[in-house]
Amino acid sequence: MLKKVLIANRGEIAVRIIRACKELNIKTVAVYSTEDKDSLHVKLADEAICIGSARSKDSYLNETNILSSAINLKCDGIHPGYGFLSENYKFAKKVEENGMKFIGPSADIIEMMGDKIKAKELMKKNNVPIVPGSDGEVEDIDSAREIVNNIGLPILIKASGGGGGRGMRRVYKIEDLDKEFSEAKKEAIAAFNNGEMYIEKLIENPKHVEVQILADDYGNVISLGERDCSIQRKNQKLLEESPYNTLSDEIRDQMYKSAIIAARSCNYTNAGTVEFVLDNDKFYFIEMNTRIQVEHPVTEMVTGIDLVKEQLKIASEIPLSIKQSDININTHSIECRINSENPLKGFLPAAGKVDFLNLPGGRNVRFDTYLYNGCKISPYYDSMVGKLIVSDESRSGAIIKLKEALKELKILGINTNIELQNSIISNNDFINGDYDTSFIEKNLDKLLAVE
Amino acid sequence: MLKKVLIANRGEIAVRIIRACKELNIKTVAVYSTEDKDSLHVKLADEAICIGSARSKDSYLNETNILSSAINLKCDGIHPGYGFLSENYKFAKKVEENGMKFIGPSADIIEMMGDKIKAKELMKKNNVPIVPGSDGEVEDIDSAREIVNNIGLPILIKASGGGGGRGMRRVYKIEDLDKEFSEAKKEAIAAFNNGEMYIEKLIENPKHVEVQILADDYGNVISLGERDCSIQRKNQKLLEESPYNTLSDEIRDQMYKSAIIAARSCNYTNAGTVEFVLDNDKFYFIEMNTRIQVEHPVTEMVTGIDLVKEQLKIASEIPLSIKQSDININTHSIECRINSENPLKGFLPAAGKVDFLNLPGGRNVRFDTYLYNGCKISPYYDSMVGKLIVSDESRSGAIIKLKEALKELKILGINTNIELQNSIISNNDFINGDYDTSFIEKNLDKLLAVE
Repeated sequence: MLKKVLIANRGEIAVRIIRACKELNIKTVAVYSTEDKDSLHVKLADEAICIGSARSKDSYLNETNILSSAINLKCDGIHPGYGFLSENYKFAKKVEENGMKFIGPSADIIEMMGDKIKAKELMKKNNVPIVPGSDGEVEDIDSAREIVNNIGLPILIKASGGGGGRGMRRVYKIEDLDKEFSEAKKEAIAAFNNGEMYIEKLIENPKHVEVQILADDYGNVISLGERDCSIQRKNQKLLEESPYNTLSDEIRDQMYKSAIIAARSCNYTNAGTVEFVLDNDKFYFIEMNTRIQVEHPVTEMVTGIDLVKEQLKIASEIPLSIKQSDININTHSIECRINSENPLKGFLPAAGKVDFLNLPGGRNVRFDTYLYNGCKISPYYDSMVGKLIVSDESRSGAIIKLKEALKELKILGINTNIELQNSIISNNDFINGDYDTSFIEKNLDKLLAVE
Repeated sequence: MLKKVLIANRGEIAVRIIRACKELNIKTVAVYSTEDKDSLHVKLADEAICIGSARSKDSYLNETNILSSAINLKCDGIHPGYGFLSENYKFAKKVEENGMKFIGPSADIIEMMGDKIKAKELMKKNNVPIVPGSDGEVEDIDSAREIVNNIGLPILIKASGGGGGRGMRRVYKIEDLDKEFSEAKKEAIAAFNNGEMYIEKLIENPKHVEVQILADDYGNVISLGERDCSIQRKNQKLLEESPYNTLSDEIRDQMYKSAIIAARSCNYTNAGTVEFVLDNDKFYFIEMNTRIQVEHPVTEMVTGIDLVKEQLKIASEIPLSIKQSDININTHSIECRINSENPLKGFLPAAGKVDFLNLPGGRNVRFDTYLYNGCKISPYYDSMVGKLIVSDESRSGAIIKLKEALKELKILGINTNIELQNSIISNNDFINGDYDTSFIEKNLDKLLAVE
């Protein structure tokens, strides 16, 4: 077993990882920015070391300081959490080169799955469904027309070098194809100095469904159920649940199988998530996240398995003790992300002192947070301050429990999205399971008006 | 299903019951003393009504005010929690007579099981092992000698009318029998004006093990595992766990069977607990508790069943949906009672304002409490202010988790037994499972010195 782990993160996930380490008798080192000197993860760890000033690039992204802290304090492992350096294969490589374990898959796997085009090629080769489209570059409008003939409309034109929506066009009518293709290309050249374009079938308003995977060094790979993460705002997940209730058993099985193939195809190890979009009963691989995810507790609630402890055991080269047949999901769990922000003012992030904190409690209610009474919420980092997770025998039971827990949760002194979350779970479409990734966008005014 | 329930209690159990009611869409009425007007159960309930002044006899034991509140507010059920009126069959009868449901067994069952001698007679008739001794009164010293010949030494001489240790004598040597018997009888006459004496075999330093039962109106009775409650101080439980790890499967099975027979023998309904003392591999019925118990959450943790919701469903005449074969216990749970008291000053109860509260968190950590930041702990009531409950795959894992959770728990401004609980679970005999009901008495100095 690893002996001493540096947690290269902050906030609730650092607290979460420290607790898991303690349960395995692993010593913990917290790192913190000057801004975070009084933060909960600093108080809970066995040792704590300041790694830089407030801005993330000076502290939580400061690879040199983090590495030298780990080396100086004789750590044998680094847990990156999520965000920050968690999917930075170069950092993972440096950790490995310094004789420590990066708690996650190897740098090679992170690199490969981080290249979205290579990852999709690998999936295609292994018969994991991917969104239909061009294989690589679409050189001209004639090729574009041919692809549209094959995959049908609507389509999405994308720039290989792109991001942030630039060089991207949606095409619904064939007569718009010429104009949109040439405009996208022009925009791509202007923005990225790279006119390489590709085309994908446009999946409008899909469900976002992902499968949790655990894989050890000995070829054992298991799936731990799916999570429905369709409640998103601007591609940021807001609420997640497991299982996705209205998924047919047939599709669910296929999805689990595809997720396991995805993991096997890259010799994946440690915890990972295979993300799919689901369009009615067709699902397509989008990417594999090579880290623990924010929403992992819903899977823990329904499977009874501690995913962070499993990560630490796998990183310690211990074979998985859980078999696929041990995973039997017959309860329902929902997580609400609690953000310090003002939904009524364009989701303006809120920072400041927590004047009064009251945590919800009771059976099957969990609140993962770094907040404590009187603590400060910094403006420098992510606005997510906690995750409220509940489980119950049924989805409807979980929703009722969540409503009560949201009522009990009080974070006074700063703006939060607690009321918005309450509006979401009180919405009839949500209750009936009738929603997709466009839910928040379509209903935002109504959801905020309820407040 | 019941529609509106009055909770005739306060503190953590009132909060616990309110949460369960909400999950079943049952409206809740809190009752409170003037002292408790700002208490958490008052804030969480749908309605709240003051039933009297601070002293329990004026408020939480004020049957008239509680009954008239329930009637006026059109409740169809009263949940008594534990303590206060929970085992008062006369109150239960009045609730029934007023057309409401007393959430627990019927008044008749409470009355019968509340009479310890009648309950034991019933058990004996049904072959549930009871502590060997005299059947009823021991009239003179000759009869006493005959009984000692049959059951062996040591024995306990008890007064039928007694309690609080008066009229009670332990006899280890036969030559002491005459003197102790006559002195006990004299003491009993002086104290209770009743010289009726009986004799039991003295079980020295047994384990206290109890079995949780659920029974519905349709003859379904199931057992939900055992709890080891041997960590006690002056007959007050301090720490409870489920299962009792070192119990042999054979004895465990016999104990479950006896508990079910005990419940069936009195046509028991609702949740109940059959308490046994365990002397090596012999167990004896001591009593049946006809209410929800403080330590019920350890059973909830290992079985996944919400006992308070089950109570409410049974009281609503819904058949049990759980079968005996659904109960499979393969995790371990421990509960620490957190008391506001000063163990270093003879466990002097502490009252006052909670200046700072920090609750432990994480996976499989539950803290049932009525505390919130800045709340007041009243000197009028029980000093138990919360229950810290954890579960893990193994007992050793649960102990580690509990230690960390005790460290995270901060209740500043008042004295508590948090450090004592930490000493208990750090003690090697406790860790090795090598303890009985005398553990605290024998080790108290050492346990307190560790602080």
